[in-house]
Amino acid sequence: MSYFEDIKPGDHRSLGSFSFTAENIKAFAARFDPQPFHLDEEAGRNSIFGGLAASGWHVSSAWMKMMVAEFQREAAARALRGEPPVAAGPSPGFRNLKWIKPVLAGDTVSYRWEAVSTRVSEKRPEWGLVNSLNTGTNQHSVLVFSFEATVFMPRKPAQA
Amino acid sequence: MSYFEDIKPGDHRSLGSFSFTAENIKAFAARFDPQPFHLDEEAGRNSIFGGLAASGWHVSSAWMKMMVAEFQREAAARALRGEPPVAAGPSPGFRNLKWIKPVLAGDTVSYRWEAVSTRVSEKRPEWGLVNSLNTGTNQHSVLVFSFEATVFMPRKPAQA
Repeated sequence: MSYFEDIKPGDHRSLGSFSFTAENIKAFAARFDPQPFHLDEEAGRNSIFGGLAASGWHVSSAWMKMMVAEFQREAAARALRGEPPVAAGPSPGFRNLKWIKPVLAGDTVSYRWEAVSTRVSEKRPEWGLVNSLNTGTNQHSVLVFSFEATVFMPRKPAQA
Repeated sequence: MSYFEDIKPGDHRSLGSFSFTAENIKAFAARFDPQPFHLDEEAGRNSIFGGLAASGWHVSSAWMKMMVAEFQREAAARALRGEPPVAAGPSPGFRNLKWIKPVLAGDTVSYRWEAVSTRVSEKRPEWGLVNSLNTGTNQHSVLVFSFEATVFMPRKPAQA
């Protein structure tokens, strides 16, 4: 996690990749989205998805996993430089969550974050707000997932 | 799952409740959102959430679980009436996903679905599109979660 002042529109980060396997697709679906095309290869092939398909919430949750790993890399880099940790702020919400193409067993999705705009919160000037576009692209370079997020980020103490 | 023609604006359904426990909050977070306030009671109390807080994606995934249970109840009712099953359609996307208040260990969230508007797809007239408002309310009747969904629903064969 960075300070608000460290983020500029156009900044972007590759968050890394998550591999969707029959095993992890079925495990997520059994817990949260037990529809046949998420649980069974044959039902997936016979569905509009054309194969065993990951739940959209699994694709979304895997984005979160990759984003948190990025927070942890940033925290480790700050610690190496002897800088204090920066606490993450909450998110008031996400917009335009789109599952653009199916994510099937065997697919690997690479997630990317890009800052679209930034502003200081009017109501809480000790926080900044960062709007970002978040995407997932499969191993064939096809966009499969996107959403826009707004997240509170703490301001640098000297500037808040 | 119903046919498009069975859904009218204003139709609504209580989907049932999901109880968030320290155990299931931590299990989800360990897999997909390993931030301290989702993993540890003390870190949660010291965070902006004021307690061990469920990941927003956990709150969202629990909605899906309750929605699928509703699909299954509908399918069972159709089967009892001797009617053939109706396959669910895909979702082009969700809008305005909001985690309005923290969901803490011990909270029970009741989910609700309401049809806001319906229309026949122009591009694919064999499908209808249903826009819905989906919400989660905690045991204190406080709205904690909402989003708007658009979902394809199959048209009744005779009318498509």
